[in-house]
Amino acid sequence: MTTPQDPSAEDSLIARYFKPLATDPGAFGLVDDAAILRSSGEDIVITTDAVVEGVHYLASDPPDTIARKALRVNLSDLAAKGAVPAGFVLTLALRSQDDGWLRPFADALGEDSKTFGCALLGGDTVSTPGPQMISITAFGRVPRGRMVGRTGARPGDRILVTGTIGDAALGLDVLTGGGAAAALASDPAARDFLISRYHVPQPRSVLAQAVGDHATAGMDVSDGLAGDLTKLCAASGVSATVAVASVPLSAAAAGLIARKVVGVETLLAGGDDYEVLCTVAPAQSDALIAAGRAAGLAVTAIGTIIEGGAPPRFLDGQGQELILKRLSYSHF
Amino acid sequence: MTTPQDPSAEDSLIARYFKPLATDPGAFGLVDDAAILRSSGEDIVITTDAVVEGVHYLASDPPDTIARKALRVNLSDLAAKGAVPAGFVLTLALRSQDDGWLRPFADALGEDSKTFGCALLGGDTVSTPGPQMISITAFGRVPRGRMVGRTGARPGDRILVTGTIGDAALGLDVLTGGGAAAALASDPAARDFLISRYHVPQPRSVLAQAVGDHATAGMDVSDGLAGDLTKLCAASGVSATVAVASVPLSAAAAGLIARKVVGVETLLAGGDDYEVLCTVAPAQSDALIAAGRAAGLAVTAIGTIIEGGAPPRFLDGQGQELILKRLSYSHF
Repeated sequence: MTTPQDPSAEDSLIARYFKPLATDPGAFGLVDDAAILRSSGEDIVITTDAVVEGVHYLASDPPDTIARKALRVNLSDLAAKGAVPAGFVLTLALRSQDDGWLRPFADALGEDSKTFGCALLGGDTVSTPGPQMISITAFGRVPRGRMVGRTGARPGDRILVTGTIGDAALGLDVLTGGGAAAALASDPAARDFLISRYHVPQPRSVLAQAVGDHATAGMDVSDGLAGDLTKLCAASGVSATVAVASVPLSAAAAGLIARKVVGVETLLAGGDDYEVLCTVAPAQSDALIAAGRAAGLAVTAIGTIIEGGAPPRFLDGQGQELILKRLSYSHF
Repeated sequence: MTTPQDPSAEDSLIARYFKPLATDPGAFGLVDDAAILRSSGEDIVITTDAVVEGVHYLASDPPDTIARKALRVNLSDLAAKGAVPAGFVLTLALRSQDDGWLRPFADALGEDSKTFGCALLGGDTVSTPGPQMISITAFGRVPRGRMVGRTGARPGDRILVTGTIGDAALGLDVLTGGGAAAALASDPAARDFLISRYHVPQPRSVLAQAVGDHATAGMDVSDGLAGDLTKLCAASGVSATVAVASVPLSAAAAGLIARKVVGVETLLAGGDDYEVLCTVAPAQSDALIAAGRAAGLAVTAIGTIIEGGAPPRFLDGQGQELILKRLSYSHF
């Protein structure tokens, strides 16, 4: 509730923590209830992703990593669409105005918004008696008609993926005291690496332009490589084969597989990778890999798009199909 | 969790309930994780508003009215900015996949999205153990540089407001068994009217074009007329006087005031009106009122912008200032 001297504690919260992030003139310093995104004829790409305390992040997670993850999962979407970040709006459902939580949250969000050239345009702050929730809608720009969709994969296309797969799922396993935690009891560096991969995704914004130039289809890997590739193939009306031995793994993940702490299926179906998965015509494959190399980012060919409507097949080193019990994480 | 036969119950939920709403080609039938908003050089206006169960709506509220309100509060923002609706994205945090709730929710959302020409472009569906939450980010279009902001009010401008003020606050009072409920025990028509004003706002989209043509500043009244006018004045660096007797009231609200069930202060500070509050140069006032009349919408002059930095003064019929204990609703 308010007093005439303090017309709105909500407004003062916004002014205090979030106004410094609203560096775009279209944000009007957050004094308006609407923002402007200017376009010179290019398409505005829109993506939205929400995270819920206890579902997408742990209540004990540091607020700065929660902020970074909430923004970065959206930036990851934009990168996979070939879109250059243009700004975002933030909806924050809070149980209370806790300065010890809001200060590091807003500071980290501000840092990331600078790093990725994606300023805060507006938002809404509401109270909730339940778990905190952060919903971000992010905007990017692509040349008109050039968004990389899910429907353009064609038989013969190479399947490429950035970075490494499965680390975040292992990081969550470490955090929740699973098998990986015990196996890495004496390897804090590997533990910290995997946890950081879960806490702070690395959106592949540096590759957005090249993805837009070369990819026939693309999406980010957020629910698990196997499930996400299945969706991409279904949307494109094609199938695929993946050489499981080609799927890029970090040293930490490879070590846990070698020790049989986890199976590779866990990594293929694990969520929260936030790598770019895309398909390219064979002739374009080298160009995209080279663009990655120039940006210091591994881009790896893991398989081929084939005709047909069957789900993608994951083949081991002997050409035997791996049967996956689950493909990805689903909320319902 | 998923099985290979059912790659994602989340996707099937989206396909079942929300794909029919995604009529814009830029939504790609919701099979992509991003959407496109095309622009031919006009500005894209962005607004975002979230509603939380138990905070902004009651758990017992009908799902169809929750859907309408969630979209309409955003459409109300767009109208006050002079923007024509262009589409929206939806974030839905659900405790479970309850078909009895989702079906009327999605149907009503679809109806409103048709009525107001604002198609679903994309969204995110997440699970929550807490209260349900609906966050909508809506987009509109204005000619380049022509969004009606909060900073343009000038001394001498008339202050105009659409519709009637205070009904929704009284509707909530009826629903929660307050004084208005008892006073209207034998007047079900008045009760139903006030409740419907709380449940289903009427975004003034029909006036958007005229607001864009004539208003120097504008915003929608969502947190209470007194508080919202205070914000508009502060953003414009001006003050205002309002003739309380001019503030338009419904017959139901006027009756409760005449019977001293509530004071006018309650209505001036009550939230959820979703009327347009704007300022216009005196010479433009008649044109905006006439545009309203042509659209069947009352537009009423309630006061004047004056120089100064003091909060707006609300004057009674004798020119005495009404002292408001509170100006609006705040979440913190």
